[in-house]
Amino acid sequence: MTLTYVCTLDLPTEWFDALARRVPGLDLHRFGSGTEPSAEVLERTDLLHTSSWLPDAAQVPNLRAIQLDTSGVDHVRGTALWDTEIPIATLGGIAPVPMAEYAMMSMLELAHRMPLIERLRATRTWPGDAERLATLTPRSLVGATVGIIGYGRIGREISRLAGAFGMRVLGLKRTAARSDGTAKFDTGRSSADADTTEIFPMERLHEVLAQSDVLVVVVPLTELTRGMIGDAELALLPPGAFVVNIARGGIVDEDALLGRLRSGEIGGAALDVFDDEPLPPDSPWWSEPGVLVTPHVAGLAPEYQSQTLDLVVENLNRLADGRPLLNEVDRVSGY
Amino acid sequence: MTLTYVCTLDLPTEWFDALARRVPGLDLHRFGSGTEPSAEVLERTDLLHTSSWLPDAAQVPNLRAIQLDTSGVDHVRGTALWDTEIPIATLGGIAPVPMAEYAMMSMLELAHRMPLIERLRATRTWPGDAERLATLTPRSLVGATVGIIGYGRIGREISRLAGAFGMRVLGLKRTAARSDGTAKFDTGRSSADADTTEIFPMERLHEVLAQSDVLVVVVPLTELTRGMIGDAELALLPPGAFVVNIARGGIVDEDALLGRLRSGEIGGAALDVFDDEPLPPDSPWWSEPGVLVTPHVAGLAPEYQSQTLDLVVENLNRLADGRPLLNEVDRVSGY
Repeated sequence: MTLTYVCTLDLPTEWFDALARRVPGLDLHRFGSGTEPSAEVLERTDLLHTSSWLPDAAQVPNLRAIQLDTSGVDHVRGTALWDTEIPIATLGGIAPVPMAEYAMMSMLELAHRMPLIERLRATRTWPGDAERLATLTPRSLVGATVGIIGYGRIGREISRLAGAFGMRVLGLKRTAARSDGTAKFDTGRSSADADTTEIFPMERLHEVLAQSDVLVVVVPLTELTRGMIGDAELALLPPGAFVVNIARGGIVDEDALLGRLRSGEIGGAALDVFDDEPLPPDSPWWSEPGVLVTPHVAGLAPEYQSQTLDLVVENLNRLADGRPLLNEVDRVSGY
Repeated sequence: MTLTYVCTLDLPTEWFDALARRVPGLDLHRFGSGTEPSAEVLERTDLLHTSSWLPDAAQVPNLRAIQLDTSGVDHVRGTALWDTEIPIATLGGIAPVPMAEYAMMSMLELAHRMPLIERLRATRTWPGDAERLATLTPRSLVGATVGIIGYGRIGREISRLAGAFGMRVLGLKRTAARSDGTAKFDTGRSSADADTTEIFPMERLHEVLAQSDVLVVVVPLTELTRGMIGDAELALLPPGAFVVNIARGGIVDEDALLGRLRSGEIGGAALDVFDDEPLPPDSPWWSEPGVLVTPHVAGLAPEYQSQTLDLVVENLNRLADGRPLLNEVDRVSGY
């Protein structure tokens, strides 16, 4: 059976050549950013590989699956395609290693006073011995507790690294198993049998917060998680706690976080995602001391192309065999 | 036997109270920064606990040992006390955890393009998707090789962490065992039996350099190591290598490093130590892109006070018993 595959992503020609070699007979169509696939091709498309461009359901009468180039599906929820039964697969499983590296880097930078050190550098200031000792001595990560809100593939990889640094790890995840038992792609290096993380269900969020010297938010944005870390939740963190947000805007209350950073109750934050992206030029975050700000880069993966290729090949084979996709979204859970 | 202990460091009163409790009968004298111990006290001092203040040998006729508050002894070499046979103990063994954290943080920051991200932030610039992908995708640490120049207590701890990130580790150390077999204080978490680092003798430096995607310099400053990483050595690194210097100024040729950073042969650097400290206001390092600059903070240890207390108590007990000190400097090796 010949599958028609349509890709809207700006991947290099070599990538498509490799795909054609690995899936012989594939009817492959690529479209650069800005140009839409032709109506004729869309009409017979089996697999659409896309990031944010989505057709109307009527344009793709034969569509059998969507392969997203994103780990989240919050931009698809609410569209006409979401309301169909066409399977949607995410890019999940590619990001665990770089995301966990980013999270660990953030914890290290906050513990080692890098936001303050960067400010000193900007004014070419080399502090004296007493000032250095008093203001730049790092916080101890050894023995500190990190609470990971959203304990999935990325959370497990963060846990593995944090463990190497002598941290205690608490992981929060949904109690109920997802309804579908989907097979998942995973390029992380964690093995479940070595995992000593203490796992808590969502209902025990407040217990986790109260113990988290570092809070890492990496939960998908769904109707359940929107606004889940509000002012009342931030108030439960131990004094001087650090907050690392690598999830999506809309989950952590930015105003509440800013207020508690400025009052000193929260000791620092690393933010890769924001309510408004691109972050507006007048956002207070750009110049807020004690805060690391990065432009939604935590998920950028060095091995993105080869890993995406593996995932697409696997899902094309699954489609040809009539098997469920890897990383298939459960529309009930919402991710 | 009552020991006379003189401390020139600005440690809190609680620290001295704890020392007095743990070494009953100690004749304890503390002097703040700027004030020197009295001649009468110095005359009968057994153990001098100091950082950079050093008496003339004639002032301390009964001195039996010096406990330094530094890991390096380069500031003592060349003084009159160096030419005596009075045992000198360093602070070695307290820094492995924070130094290794700092080294790992530096590798992560360089791999994750943090110097560029900080510059974008300074101009409130949020890059577009294509620019983000092209310029901010991290370098892979998984599978990269880190060469550690000076593989001692700190190097072992760096190796343990780098291993958790999937890096291959090469360690360079002196071939010959030190002449004294000194017992060493070590608060690092490495265990020798789990160490898979490939160890090279100093004579094979060039082999290590040629394989080091990341070069970490953590060797003590001695007559043997001064200038050991010059232009010819930097030229051997793989294209785009990162250099992390947490040792001492004088070991890495700063002009050569700057030149190779600007030509792009070296991909980034993290520098905590410099030829001139404090770094002069007109130093090019303050504003050099692609370089992390920190004011000699890598050795600041969160548990410094309690660990120093343990070390001083142990060395006072050893002195009372007539046993060799922990962390005793070997004047032949020079550290």
